Amino acid sequence: MQRMLSEIRIAGYGGQGVILAAAVIGKAEAIYHGGHAVMTQAFGPEARGGSSSAQVILSSEPILYPYVTQPDVLVVMSQEAYTRFAPQLKPGGILITEQELVNIDRMPTGIRVYGVPATRLAEELGRKMVLNIVMVGFFGAVTNLLDRDALRQAVTDSVPPAFQQLNQRAFDKGYEYGSKLLLELSENGEAEEAVSLESV
Amino acid sequence: MQRMLSEIRIAGYGGQGVILAAAVIGKAEAIYHGGHAVMTQAFGPEARGGSSSAQVILSSEPILYPYVTQPDVLVVMSQEAYTRFAPQLKPGGILITEQELVNIDRMPTGIRVYGVPATRLAEELGRKMVLNIVMVGFFGAVTNLLDRDALRQAVTDSVPPAFQQLNQRAFDKGYEYGSKLLLELSENGEAEEAVSLESV
Repeated sequence: MQRMLSEIRIAGYGGQGVILAAAVIGKAEAIYHGGHAVMTQAFGPEARGGSSSAQVILSSEPILYPYVTQPDVLVVMSQEAYTRFAPQLKPGGILITEQELVNIDRMPTGIRVYGVPATRLAEELGRKMVLNIVMVGFFGAVTNLLDRDALRQAVTDSVPPAFQQLNQRAFDKGYEYGSKLLLELSENGEAEEAVSLESV
Repeated sequence: MQRMLSEIRIAGYGGQGVILAAAVIGKAEAIYHGGHAVMTQAFGPEARGGSSSAQVILSSEPILYPYVTQPDVLVVMSQEAYTRFAPQLKPGGILITEQELVNIDRMPTGIRVYGVPATRLAEELGRKMVLNIVMVGFFGAVTNLLDRDALRQAVTDSVPPAFQQLNQRAFDKGYEYGSKLLLELSENGEAEEAVSLESV
């Protein structure tokens, strides 16, 4: 898929696997789509106390300036991350939340919001630690920015061999939850919205 | 510790936790030392087949250009990573290897080399997956770039709660292996080398 620049920010607590989630997305673009991707994480005092955020840029051109200012897609896994980063989301952007950890108090206008109970879905697999990969699967389904198989392969390549099957199941679970959600939305007459996601 | 710019590259296989290791180092600098740090990972076709590399820059000033070209410290956890990145190491730099995975065929001149059997030490803790944190501990001891407690706290903040103790043990194991190695080197009359590491 050729694309314009897509900027993605993923944010949550330390220990939720935010950085790995960003790395998987970058890898899928660069290796399996033939595009360019760079991930950055700038650390600052705000990360004290365990918050974490990572940015990834996907592009059909080499990326000279790798910092994200206004993301097209924001994935948040904590209330603090939502509060801090939601105002920066680009108009027309996509907000993806861990819906049991994030309470959307003020609905941003012109933003599509998709929620997934990623922690609970990960717990159903017996390992809460894979919530980040559930989020990646869900991200894949609702944004359609990357080919499903490419994203799944990037997951496999990014985790230790002993955890590959678990993470593939986590990815599939998140992806299927997202696909089902899009289908429900389209059946509720929001088909146009769901389709236009492809051109983010 | 005030410092000049320090550029670090960590490279190995996908699934070895290369990115997390880089993130821990960046976090320790920015949060617990009050400096600036940025991590980048540029993905390209060379990452296909599972190689992985991440860069982190530590600085007392804000970092405008976050890409690493010639690292001061190179940490390699695979032969491929060694072959690819060792020629880029800055003269006078430090090369840290997973010594059972990397065979140093041609000794670079003017480079200090420190090896650690990180995979085996991780296996002694029952979990091979913590080899990256063993490497971080070893890195901490032999470079002395960061305060031990700061680095250890950054490890704790970066992993899921259920894995914090395991990772602290992995960190300590790597750190102690490194301290002991430096001591042995100094007893063998290489004291000057070991001391001058602090001014990298």
